[in-house]
Amino acid sequence: MSVFDAKAAANPGVRQLQPYQAGKPMDELQRELGLAKVIKLASNENPLGLSGKVRTALQAEVEELIRYPDANGFYLKSKLAALHQVQPQQITLGNGSNDVLEILARTFVSAADEVIYSQHAFVVYPLVTQAIGAKGVSVAARNYGHDLDAMAAAVSEKTKMIFVANPNNPTGTFLTTEALQSFLDKVPSRVLVVLDEAYSEYVPENERAPSVAWLHDYPNLVVSRTFSKAYGLAGLRAGYAVSSVEIADLMNRIRQPFNVNSLSLKAAEVILDDHEYLQKAVRVNQQGMQQLTEFCQQNGYNYIPSYGNFLTIEVGPDAGEIYQKLLHQGVIVRPVGGYGLPNHLRVSIGLPEENQAFIDAMNRIASAKN
Amino acid sequence: MSVFDAKAAANPGVRQLQPYQAGKPMDELQRELGLAKVIKLASNENPLGLSGKVRTALQAEVEELIRYPDANGFYLKSKLAALHQVQPQQITLGNGSNDVLEILARTFVSAADEVIYSQHAFVVYPLVTQAIGAKGVSVAARNYGHDLDAMAAAVSEKTKMIFVANPNNPTGTFLTTEALQSFLDKVPSRVLVVLDEAYSEYVPENERAPSVAWLHDYPNLVVSRTFSKAYGLAGLRAGYAVSSVEIADLMNRIRQPFNVNSLSLKAAEVILDDHEYLQKAVRVNQQGMQQLTEFCQQNGYNYIPSYGNFLTIEVGPDAGEIYQKLLHQGVIVRPVGGYGLPNHLRVSIGLPEENQAFIDAMNRIASAKN
Repeated sequence: MSVFDAKAAANPGVRQLQPYQAGKPMDELQRELGLAKVIKLASNENPLGLSGKVRTALQAEVEELIRYPDANGFYLKSKLAALHQVQPQQITLGNGSNDVLEILARTFVSAADEVIYSQHAFVVYPLVTQAIGAKGVSVAARNYGHDLDAMAAAVSEKTKMIFVANPNNPTGTFLTTEALQSFLDKVPSRVLVVLDEAYSEYVPENERAPSVAWLHDYPNLVVSRTFSKAYGLAGLRAGYAVSSVEIADLMNRIRQPFNVNSLSLKAAEVILDDHEYLQKAVRVNQQGMQQLTEFCQQNGYNYIPSYGNFLTIEVGPDAGEIYQKLLHQGVIVRPVGGYGLPNHLRVSIGLPEENQAFIDAMNRIASAKN
Repeated sequence: MSVFDAKAAANPGVRQLQPYQAGKPMDELQRELGLAKVIKLASNENPLGLSGKVRTALQAEVEELIRYPDANGFYLKSKLAALHQVQPQQITLGNGSNDVLEILARTFVSAADEVIYSQHAFVVYPLVTQAIGAKGVSVAARNYGHDLDAMAAAVSEKTKMIFVANPNNPTGTFLTTEALQSFLDKVPSRVLVVLDEAYSEYVPENERAPSVAWLHDYPNLVVSRTFSKAYGLAGLRAGYAVSSVEIADLMNRIRQPFNVNSLSLKAAEVILDDHEYLQKAVRVNQQGMQQLTEFCQQNGYNYIPSYGNFLTIEVGPDAGEIYQKLLHQGVIVRPVGGYGLPNHLRVSIGLPEENQAFIDAMNRIASAKN
């Protein structure tokens, strides 16, 4: 009998990795607790349901699934290029923006490098850093958000990449255009700045940074976006980066040629034209945000003001217990202890009745306690 | 104006990478040449069209696309575990088997390591090796196939992983159970052997190696499979590895949590039960293989006897020219000069009428020449 010590054989960074903890799937909770109905406000998904235009387009596309996807994503890249007024060669498509972030790290970061991100920032930044065996530098947050001055000050000779999430998940904090531009001015141009705008569509238009236009002045900038949130395509996996042609060319060498599947390519193409869907998604989110913040204010819960499609609420030291009680009432939210927020729960904005179900469950839990 | 030298900033392995060259998409050829009809025999896709059972299942699943996929692939893993008589924790799902191969390399291979593969073997092996900056060791083929003795002899102290494709793409060559087992006996147990069985379903059952059962005796073995070929799901992207629980646990740390999209998970689950579809795919392939080999024999073309769903035909030193002429006749095949086979073209087995269209086009090209 031969022996293989898998753990010893693995790369050091991998050995220490903890896999990403996804939001609990609805049917898993139903299986476990025997619940008839489950409401999931755990993964910042779009509560509207699929765009009707996407549904129609996918039906036509299904027959083609025996074919490999277009490895170059010709049509989607053309459309994104027109949207952002860049060349198609500046777009890199990903299997969700997670894929884009990973490709960026693997293209530019080696085990000898350092990568900077903020405390409470999206967990994929430390994960992709650690997978390479690079050193992650987590910079203490300020009011739950990125402390850009401290992040700029943390740049060392070894710094290769800085992740900036705007808005940030799971805090919902937002950085102004002025703050970002001043940060970009401070960062040495040899350091890549990855600006993750997964939640950009929820930000009021007049507050959004002209991030893609900045590529002219900051060739070390990469902007990433996703179709998983406001566009409602989380299950299909599509995201992208906009960067210089040179950066995109290098990313393209690492990218798996068929990383984005055929239905994602098609759905993303179609949803970009469904302006009505996007507007409705944003409107429903604004209303739900108001519903949840009013609940918090009326019941004395602190929360982190959010520019995203979720609200992170301080429920106190028994957050884990409240999370479990919510599960037993069929409401899935997200514990964020792993993000250094053990007293908070992150609640995705749902439809009015879903938000109300969360509120009702919280009220029942509070009543039972008193 | 700040400057960022992207190429200098990229990891050395990445700088030297050439991106994977995918088969020409059909609509791209139509766009370029203004052709009304195009036949694609370039990417080893299943010519049957999508399984009707999969089509029905996907229609029901589409509404759920606003949700993230199940990060653990619970149902699909359970089904695969039952099929292979292993535990679900031994399965690692991938965004196609390309993803599985990349995850394996990134989990275990570092820049200081060596990776062995055969000449003429699937290009993803050198690609994932080079992306890490590891040293790829290409071992000369024997009769177009893997020379397992030479591959075993190439193992050095630095060897971390060996890729073995069975059948191999793009040659279609096959290794017997005895040859493989003798190879596994020779390889030191500290070296991972990745047995890529993407085309396994096309191999007559009585000739297939009991590869998954071997995991008991060879804990350094990993078997990879795909849903892109005989199962007809190339456009959706699904593949998997079967390994020890320990190896799977480590791979799972590197794997992007939502690497397999919701429709892939569902389609893969459903197609595993559609035995009729698989049988028909294999039957159509056998018939098409006969059709193409007879054409070769009757017209004096040498070919590499193939266990896959493609035939690699020696058309001579003007292979590039013939490829272009075929394109102009609306038939896409695959040049394999990049695989060290400049005189060959790889032709995927299509439906009888598609194979005939290729044959007719070849005959027209030959007539025009004479």
